[in-house]
Amino acid sequence: MSSSKRPGRSPSHDYAADNGLINRRILLGRGLAIAGAMGAAGTVTGAAAEPLKDAPWSLEFGSITPPVQTPSPYEKNVVRSLSNPNGEFRNSHARTPHHLLGGTITPNGLHFSINHGGIPNIDPAQHKLVIHGMVRQPLEFTLEMLSRYPLVTRTNFVECAGNSAPMFSKEPLQVTAQAIHGLVSNAEWSGVPLSVLLDEAGIDPNAKWLIAEGADPQFLDRSVPVKKAYDDALVAIYQNGERLMPGNGYPMRLLLPGYQGNMNVKFLRRIKAVEQPAMSMFESKTYSQILPGGKTWRFHFLMEVKSFITYPSFGHSLNEPGFYAISGVAYSGSGRIAKVMVSADGGKSWGEAALQSPVHEKSFTRFVMPWRWDGQPAILQSRAWDEAGNVQPLRAEFVAARGEASNPVNPLAFPNQHYNSLTSWSVDSKGGIKHVYA
Amino acid sequence: MSSSKRPGRSPSHDYAADNGLINRRILLGRGLAIAGAMGAAGTVTGAAAEPLKDAPWSLEFGSITPPVQTPSPYEKNVVRSLSNPNGEFRNSHARTPHHLLGGTITPNGLHFSINHGGIPNIDPAQHKLVIHGMVRQPLEFTLEMLSRYPLVTRTNFVECAGNSAPMFSKEPLQVTAQAIHGLVSNAEWSGVPLSVLLDEAGIDPNAKWLIAEGADPQFLDRSVPVKKAYDDALVAIYQNGERLMPGNGYPMRLLLPGYQGNMNVKFLRRIKAVEQPAMSMFESKTYSQILPGGKTWRFHFLMEVKSFITYPSFGHSLNEPGFYAISGVAYSGSGRIAKVMVSADGGKSWGEAALQSPVHEKSFTRFVMPWRWDGQPAILQSRAWDEAGNVQPLRAEFVAARGEASNPVNPLAFPNQHYNSLTSWSVDSKGGIKHVYA
Repeated sequence: MSSSKRPGRSPSHDYAADNGLINRRILLGRGLAIAGAMGAAGTVTGAAAEPLKDAPWSLEFGSITPPVQTPSPYEKNVVRSLSNPNGEFRNSHARTPHHLLGGTITPNGLHFSINHGGIPNIDPAQHKLVIHGMVRQPLEFTLEMLSRYPLVTRTNFVECAGNSAPMFSKEPLQVTAQAIHGLVSNAEWSGVPLSVLLDEAGIDPNAKWLIAEGADPQFLDRSVPVKKAYDDALVAIYQNGERLMPGNGYPMRLLLPGYQGNMNVKFLRRIKAVEQPAMSMFESKTYSQILPGGKTWRFHFLMEVKSFITYPSFGHSLNEPGFYAISGVAYSGSGRIAKVMVSADGGKSWGEAALQSPVHEKSFTRFVMPWRWDGQPAILQSRAWDEAGNVQPLRAEFVAARGEASNPVNPLAFPNQHYNSLTSWSVDSKGGIKHVYA
Repeated sequence: MSSSKRPGRSPSHDYAADNGLINRRILLGRGLAIAGAMGAAGTVTGAAAEPLKDAPWSLEFGSITPPVQTPSPYEKNVVRSLSNPNGEFRNSHARTPHHLLGGTITPNGLHFSINHGGIPNIDPAQHKLVIHGMVRQPLEFTLEMLSRYPLVTRTNFVECAGNSAPMFSKEPLQVTAQAIHGLVSNAEWSGVPLSVLLDEAGIDPNAKWLIAEGADPQFLDRSVPVKKAYDDALVAIYQNGERLMPGNGYPMRLLLPGYQGNMNVKFLRRIKAVEQPAMSMFESKTYSQILPGGKTWRFHFLMEVKSFITYPSFGHSLNEPGFYAISGVAYSGSGRIAKVMVSADGGKSWGEAALQSPVHEKSFTRFVMPWRWDGQPAILQSRAWDEAGNVQPLRAEFVAARGEASNPVNPLAFPNQHYNSLTSWSVDSKGGIKHVYA
């Protein structure tokens, strides 16, 4: 296929937008001819006709099969990045390495977590969840009792309201999608609908809020509208098929699909039905976002529609001109993703990406955009729409409404929450990738 | 809720079948009243009004957040069971602990694996996949090249044809669902459609088979119909979002949804397009099932419709009469699960279970059946139908057609493959659970 070694536009392609974006219809048909478009470094060879040289691992008996398998040693860099690796007396963040993952599920080992007093080592036989307050009959549940209930299984993202805080910086930080967007992850959760437990306790119709409290050393508490409990809230006890990870709330957590992560109270020990919200620290202070002009978002729970490109992105480089599949994740707290548009020229022209089915509600949807890179500078962006008609704001719109911060990594610097505008990756003529605002 | 402490039939329940199976419609409505039906041991208390005693883990700073998180130490028994824990010079099986899992995803650490020469420690930068034989142009792919392709993401089960071999025993073995059915797992796989790669190589229309070969020390090879490649086959490079596990084929494997596990060639290094199948060891000997009467199934690839109850099952016990959600997994190599029926009286009467959505093709579907156990002996069974109209055969039918073996755990004992009849768990009046044939 030496004829294809010279990169450039293939005249047979149906382009969706400028700068090499190919119509996603190509993914349905035949003759994608990517190997040919890979150029010199993507070796397409006649060497297969020669005897295949056996690799060393084919010539010796391999490793022992372990009770719990772990990734290859060659994947040792696919780990969460930590804000507090030595367990100092403060909070700890662990960020998901999105730029190194594919598909839509975040494997349990790599699910993000934030804990404010370390990770409690809870004995599930001793842990109890109490439902009390404005109820006919207070109830107490062990993990064993919850396990006897009919469980509901759902795939949902959980996102910290402070995810993407580095995007409030006045200058684009030269860091990976993990560092920017690593405080969101996506998993299959199984648990008992909270509505079932509230019905059993006989919740008073005048109770409008639930104060959910964790058994962590901070007794983290948040107020949750009763309405959300009857919409789609779960008391989750399984995460991707196994019991919850310790950092994600073992043995039980609240799951409020689409609501800010902090409200999905982990190590759940009490739910109190009340008339008025608790005005706890996290809702009255931390997650009451001060807006430009001084107004404050109170009880702003929903995580807005969002997307970002994971490949190619900062930390990768393109070895040669030719074919690449641009790929990333999109999600919305309002429901399903309806559409993702991708630009390779910094937003001047847009092509519609292919969405991987199935598209779940309030869950990662992976998008794919075929792209033929001609070796010239490019700026890659994605923009998502959800089924409710919400769209990611352009950066200029977003900054005008929400402001910028001089120190986005200082938790006292405002604004730093609910960023859902675009992320832009520039590709230079050598294939180097930078984070830019465009 | 002392009035509910006496177990037994609640007059308000709409029963779906005898022996306490409750109509699944109850899951849609309110007032499940399970806590009340839990009886004495399922403590429902007014103690919540008392001050909550803080547990020790709430009173001290917790553990350090690690780069890769792992399950709680309290879950240390949730591991795969091994047939060759010391890595002796023979094959190794690791079985998924289905009786301890929920939902539908098998977490990567617990995905089953079988390897015949240990697990090769493959350097992904050195590994290559060659497509050759009856093609216009042989091609060679590295992991990096495949990563540039538009990837397709699918959730599919993989099942060893020898899964459930203990069910061929003349006497029911007293072992867990893990020991019986642990050689099937379910994951989200992302990869390049094999059809795309074959089109690029320009496969000859006269080529009807592909010989797929792994880079393991056995060079495991299987013949795959070209037709399957153009149906839904992938060269998978991600498993539940991260690179494949070493025991599941790192860095790349064939994924043939619904076909027997052994054909989903791991450590994939060569695909040769040919006119006739290779008659390799695994297809001509191991997986050519000898039927009663001496006939042999050759090239019998499809894994049939199947289901089994995971909770309650052998290894569990019921502490008290009252409410339980019977739960398990169903799947079919022919497509989606259409229906699962559950019996609590050994097959005399059946009620339809609720299926967890979404129901994917060739993937685990979790079913749930509400049940009020009255403390009397019961025999629990599940039976699945797929959208193609296939149904799990009853055990008498299955044994008549397929026979029994005197030594089902000896790999030379035949028949021992493609078991897809029912699994029955008996519950005695003390809540003890045994494996029975019914």
